[in-house]
Amino acid sequence: MQARGRLIGLGVGPGDPELITVKALRLLRESPVVAYFVAKGKKGNAFGIIEAHLQAAQTLMPLVYPVTTEALPAPMSYEQIISDFYDTASLDVAAHLDAGRDVAVICEGDPFFYGSYMYLHDRLAERYEAEVVPGVCSMLGGASVLGAPLVYRNQSLSVLSGVLSADELKRKLVDADAAVIMKLGRNLPKVRQVLIDTGLAERALYVERATMSNQKIVPLAEVDPMSSPYFSLIIVPGERWQG
Amino acid sequence: MQARGRLIGLGVGPGDPELITVKALRLLRESPVVAYFVAKGKKGNAFGIIEAHLQAAQTLMPLVYPVTTEALPAPMSYEQIISDFYDTASLDVAAHLDAGRDVAVICEGDPFFYGSYMYLHDRLAERYEAEVVPGVCSMLGGASVLGAPLVYRNQSLSVLSGVLSADELKRKLVDADAAVIMKLGRNLPKVRQVLIDTGLAERALYVERATMSNQKIVPLAEVDPMSSPYFSLIIVPGERWQG
Ligand SMILES: C[S@@+](CC[C@H](N)C(=O)[O-])C[C@H]1O[C@@H](n2cnc3c(N)ncnc32)[C@H](O)[C@@H]1O
Ligand SMILES: C[S@@+](CC[C@H](N)C(=O)[O-])C[C@H]1O[C@@H](n2cnc3c(N)ncnc32)[C@H](O)[C@@H]1O
Repeated sequence: MQARGRLIGLGVGPGDPELITVKALRLLRESPVVAYFVAKGKKGNAFGIIEAHLQAAQTLMPLVYPVTTEALPAPMSYEQIISDFYDTASLDVAAHLDAGRDVAVICEGDPFFYGSYMYLHDRLAERYEAEVVPGVCSMLGGASVLGAPLVYRNQSLSVLSGVLSADELKRKLVDADAAVIMKLGRNLPKVRQVLIDTGLAERALYVERATMSNQKIVPLAEVDPMSSPYFSLIIVPGERWQG
Repeated sequence: MQARGRLIGLGVGPGDPELITVKALRLLRESPVVAYFVAKGKKGNAFGIIEAHLQAAQTLMPLVYPVTTEALPAPMSYEQIISDFYDTASLDVAAHLDAGRDVAVICEGDPFFYGSYMYLHDRLAERYEAEVVPGVCSMLGGASVLGAPLVYRNQSLSVLSGVLSADELKRKLVDADAAVIMKLGRNLPKVRQVLIDTGLAERALYVERATMSNQKIVPLAEVDPMSSPYFSLIIVPGERWQG
């Protein structure tokens, strides 16, 4: 009987191709199939990061999202569409695994830190051998380029999604010593207002496409909300410990 | 005039030497001086991770902590001792920078995620060119070996220190969708009781020395509090999104 392939969740880091780990690079090169999530008509961020390392013999497997925004008229149908998509993608991946081929699913940042890989993992890891290679996540890539030490000593760090309501964000931010807000894009005006209301705007740092060649660091007050991309985040660093 | 050296905060990942980034490895090799924090009489975790890559011509610069525990009779004197230590370490590092030598300060995990490097950075980054190379942090190394997707979609993640009081931990845990608790060691009994009290013990996962060769994964209920090392953490993963 043919041995089954391994499912590999491969973190490739926040954007700079040099921020991939030695292990991820090795497993990437050893994987006959390389899968990646991508928006319709796009190349895909994770794909761009590792593209230079691909070899002709490797099978590329784009997993193309059927929808590009969560702002559909009926929210339940978005959830159904996306859930069906993950079901289908899992079957496609499983076909390779059944045929004995390892499948590396490349993930921007870290696979288990808000990564789409998690939905494949949840569907497949009980039936197939799965290995996850952790990666440098975007918030730490962001902190590094902002020169912003993130959390000191016994401070608490809250990682929040910009999709949360203004009230939720407020409540969580006032209780955090340090915070990171992901998923900005069209949520930026709301998030910025919350930071002003909670007195945190002065401490907040904003970065777009951290560590990528088109990285942009702008004072939060000057960010044009119309142009804030999905790949942006805000960091409210912990207060410097006077140690 | 001699050009000044660069201060480099070099994240080397959570333990597995292969989880260093390609960039960190390059800068490590290029740095004439390699500094690292270490406890008295120990080799140092970060040092062990990169030891195999060192070359004879590189100057090693151990920065030896003057005290090994925060549990001194008078807490203020601990703060003073450690603060003086960072002052002195900064001067030692600055001497190399002034002589035109780059100094790579290697850091377990990521430099800006609870790393001691932050105290050098705060003292030196305004006067010297500083670059931080982000690394895979311990919580994501831990999630990967536990096979535990950490945060889904718009969930909030709280990263907490086991040093916090039971009441603080309780209050923060009940409000989090997903949580990571660092700095266990002698705080383990308290943290475990809080997880039981908040009904989270069943979901909580425990790992010692994640990704290191002596890694240990034990059910939380079975951890011997007398033997729980400093290099351990607990993860309460977010509830699986039924997408
Ligand atoms: C679906 S999550 C993926 C996170 C990723 N798995 C990680 O480990 O960082 C997407 C969000 O990550 C953040 N993000 C990812 N890469 C980024 C980058 N290079 N710069 C700034 N933000 C980034 C943005 O907030 C974006 O909305
Ligand atoms: C001073 S903090 C340093 C964190 C590090 N800079 C990082 O990025 O993860 C030390 C704490 O990190 C956690 N830790 C570090 N490495 C670990 C590992 N390999 N396994 C489990 N926990 C680890 C433990 O909770 C420990 O008490």
